[in-house]
Amino acid sequence: MEGGGGGGEEWLRPMDAEQLRECGHRMVDFVADYYKSIEAFPVLSQPGYLKELLPDSAPRQPDTLDSIFDDIRQKIIPGVTHWQSPNYFAYYPSNSSTAGFLGEMLSAAFNIVGFSWITSPAATELEVIVLDWFAKMLQLPSQFLSTALGGGVIQGTASEAVLVALLAARDRALKKHGKQSLEKLVVYASDQTHSSLQKACQIAGIFSENFRVVIADCNKNYAVASEAVSEALSIDLSSGLIPFFICATVGTTSSSAVDPLPELGQIAKSYDMWFHIDAAYAGSACICPEYRHHLNGVEEADSFNMNAHKWFLTNFDCSLLWVKDKSFLIQLLSTNPEYLKNKASQANSVVDFKDWQIPLGRRFRSLKLWMVLRLYGVDNLQSYIRKHIHLAEHFEQLLISDSRFEVVTRRTFSLVCFRLVPPTSDQDNGRKLNYDLMDGVNSSGQIFITHAVLSGKFVLRFAVGAPLTEEQHVDAAWKLLQDEATKVLGKMV
Amino acid sequence: MEGGGGGGEEWLRPMDAEQLRECGHRMVDFVADYYKSIEAFPVLSQPGYLKELLPDSAPRQPDTLDSIFDDIRQKIIPGVTHWQSPNYFAYYPSNSSTAGFLGEMLSAAFNIVGFSWITSPAATELEVIVLDWFAKMLQLPSQFLSTALGGGVIQGTASEAVLVALLAARDRALKKHGKQSLEKLVVYASDQTHSSLQKACQIAGIFSENFRVVIADCNKNYAVASEAVSEALSIDLSSGLIPFFICATVGTTSSSAVDPLPELGQIAKSYDMWFHIDAAYAGSACICPEYRHHLNGVEEADSFNMNAHKWFLTNFDCSLLWVKDKSFLIQLLSTNPEYLKNKASQANSVVDFKDWQIPLGRRFRSLKLWMVLRLYGVDNLQSYIRKHIHLAEHFEQLLISDSRFEVVTRRTFSLVCFRLVPPTSDQDNGRKLNYDLMDGVNSSGQIFITHAVLSGKFVLRFAVGAPLTEEQHVDAAWKLLQDEATKVLGKMV
Repeated sequence: MEGGGGGGEEWLRPMDAEQLRECGHRMVDFVADYYKSIEAFPVLSQPGYLKELLPDSAPRQPDTLDSIFDDIRQKIIPGVTHWQSPNYFAYYPSNSSTAGFLGEMLSAAFNIVGFSWITSPAATELEVIVLDWFAKMLQLPSQFLSTALGGGVIQGTASEAVLVALLAARDRALKKHGKQSLEKLVVYASDQTHSSLQKACQIAGIFSENFRVVIADCNKNYAVASEAVSEALSIDLSSGLIPFFICATVGTTSSSAVDPLPELGQIAKSYDMWFHIDAAYAGSACICPEYRHHLNGVEEADSFNMNAHKWFLTNFDCSLLWVKDKSFLIQLLSTNPEYLKNKASQANSVVDFKDWQIPLGRRFRSLKLWMVLRLYGVDNLQSYIRKHIHLAEHFEQLLISDSRFEVVTRRTFSLVCFRLVPPTSDQDNGRKLNYDLMDGVNSSGQIFITHAVLSGKFVLRFAVGAPLTEEQHVDAAWKLLQDEATKVLGKMV
Repeated sequence: MEGGGGGGEEWLRPMDAEQLRECGHRMVDFVADYYKSIEAFPVLSQPGYLKELLPDSAPRQPDTLDSIFDDIRQKIIPGVTHWQSPNYFAYYPSNSSTAGFLGEMLSAAFNIVGFSWITSPAATELEVIVLDWFAKMLQLPSQFLSTALGGGVIQGTASEAVLVALLAARDRALKKHGKQSLEKLVVYASDQTHSSLQKACQIAGIFSENFRVVIADCNKNYAVASEAVSEALSIDLSSGLIPFFICATVGTTSSSAVDPLPELGQIAKSYDMWFHIDAAYAGSACICPEYRHHLNGVEEADSFNMNAHKWFLTNFDCSLLWVKDKSFLIQLLSTNPEYLKNKASQANSVVDFKDWQIPLGRRFRSLKLWMVLRLYGVDNLQSYIRKHIHLAEHFEQLLISDSRFEVVTRRTFSLVCFRLVPPTSDQDNGRKLNYDLMDGVNSSGQIFITHAVLSGKFVLRFAVGAPLTEEQHVDAAWKLLQDEATKVLGKMV
């Protein structure tokens, strides 16, 4: 694969240190230039038609890096939604950072596949250490540390975290009640729980009629009322069903509500159910002492999850799962084929993370989390979180100052749920009005926000959390929303 | 998070284009230097005790990048198993490449979460295009293209690919036979099938007694005999069970055997079963016309999988799955919560890959595969594969030249299975002898090989496939094996 091409450029060999150096430097400049000019791009892409721009089969002969860069600029970037833009306020954030980026580079360079400890002891050991660090930052109970029966592991996403928890709970229940009892197993969650739980139930084979969705309490800011869970549970018990899993959320997707962990934990304990806590987004805030109380009750949890890849400067993917008793995961997920056997694993003296997750292979993801913690330090990470919450407070104050708007739910972290108040005569309770407002500001390319529906109200979500977002961006977004509001209200008259 | 630290170095801000540029350049040099000196490291790490080298909690104050680099050199690298070393012959390869590395960098820089088309149209569209390119390179039937009912998707690993296939098959069967019939569903595979299928069955709730493991035929180089599958199937049918899934392998893990696809496909078709093909490793070879015949029979498959992250220069993870009818995946894996709704998805005019996989979130992985295909081109990629197969042939010839060794199975691709022939008097048929040989060469740090067991024989595996491996490395490995053989044979006397 030597080959020389036109234009005097030498073709790439599969791997050559000096070519990697040269191309790598060029890519670093490309990436730095991208960040430098990121505000120039429409946040939400107005996509082209990539299919018509690219050939319909792979090239037989190599192209140059120059032509790749040209295509990225002209064909790829116009179809990218810029999650790292300071004007990105959609869904929840997905943080990149310099430290996280460097960690991704190094992890891609080693390119190890860390299924067993032996395949790179440093990868497993660093993960164990860093997850213990993080557990201490969150003041998780000591049973979640690697020094106890539990421990932490990096999953790809919160979906995988809740899935492995659900599967471990399922198998624990089937062992107790008999493997024919699958059809009786009941899962409890609120209508504000992330859809990944529903998907996990579909995968685990939980009967769809046994996925018990309890309507969250609009008077409790859309947290679930534990009494409502108890009530549903009593009915199921009297029908001969077997409640086995409760999922609570700290920071729901629609409105960042916090479910009552102590009460739900008590229910789970009373009925020998698995108690999972999904703090995917808001877990990051709980490293600050003033927000830690939202995790009170975690003592009763069997599993706890937060996403370092959301609001914690660690590039996607990096979802942290802790369990109180790792043996349930390992019983479910381990296999031990001859070709993976090795002295260390056979002696049971090491952790093999393949037995804690769905896939066999896994990347060296602890590197980026370690680098984020090392290069920023806990104090700065707390400041980072507080700054975003402060910006969300600021946005909330702006909303309150304009009587055309209302803040729909109490803000807890860095998400603000709001809407334009519809005229009382409005047929659809402001749905079209607010949809048009959202569509208007998103179509401008200047910001990107998304929506939710709460008690039938169409609500706009303003989630602060991109690393580059400053007060000026919040102010500009507010100005844009005000102007667009004037437009859409004007059209109603 | 401005802060200045000691030593005049400015602390990192969460994201700053110029800091990213400076640090990124330093990391590129670090990575290039790593590749330059990679042969100096023991391939299989002799790990230290990382826990004792690192503090037991995260730092409150930031550290410098210099101190990170020092720690990587002194504490991390000694515990890394160097999968990219030219002297790595273990398991199957996990290729890094300059193109793949650049793709990972760019993907980490955009750091988008591509669950729905709207979250970055380019990510979804490029994936569709590149998977179509790849399907054409493999000459997959046109039903697997996005222009038909099927299509391709990038999964994290082959484990996830077989899991989603199995789950789709399970739900198809339950829909047909009633949802109480889970306990009757039977899966067929050989004892050479990868353990990820067993794990998928555990996850899907398939009863363990219904995981039918057919012993592969030692006379067919450890491919399964279709007659043996038919026989097992007849017994199950007469017991009232429901056969619903057959997994065939092109390139088994232990010995790279190729199951008889046409015959197994016919069986699957006759009994309305799902037919999955796992070509995780050997799929790469099938881009060469002279190896394509190993895929004959893929016409009957419902799903086909190969790992671009093994032997195709695309950094981990990048596992390609094609299905003939995407609706089975989507029925199983889709959820449609309000907060993810958007015009494009509601209009059903786009692909939302969240509905083709276990997790919700996903990285922009098509970038790296696109860059591998563009920067190397199909001709060079074919040469790359052929070169490794040639090196494996060369190693095979070396083995044949030394009567102390035997080649245990016929070589098909770039894996050679061999062993030291034990004296006829040997109590354990050469197990200890060959284990000691393996342990000896691995302990030297000069190469890394792994083992398998075939018909009770302890067999050594020599898998050529690291991007930097040249004939000189194979020759040096052979010399090392010969010398170590002399030692371990000497000890027997």
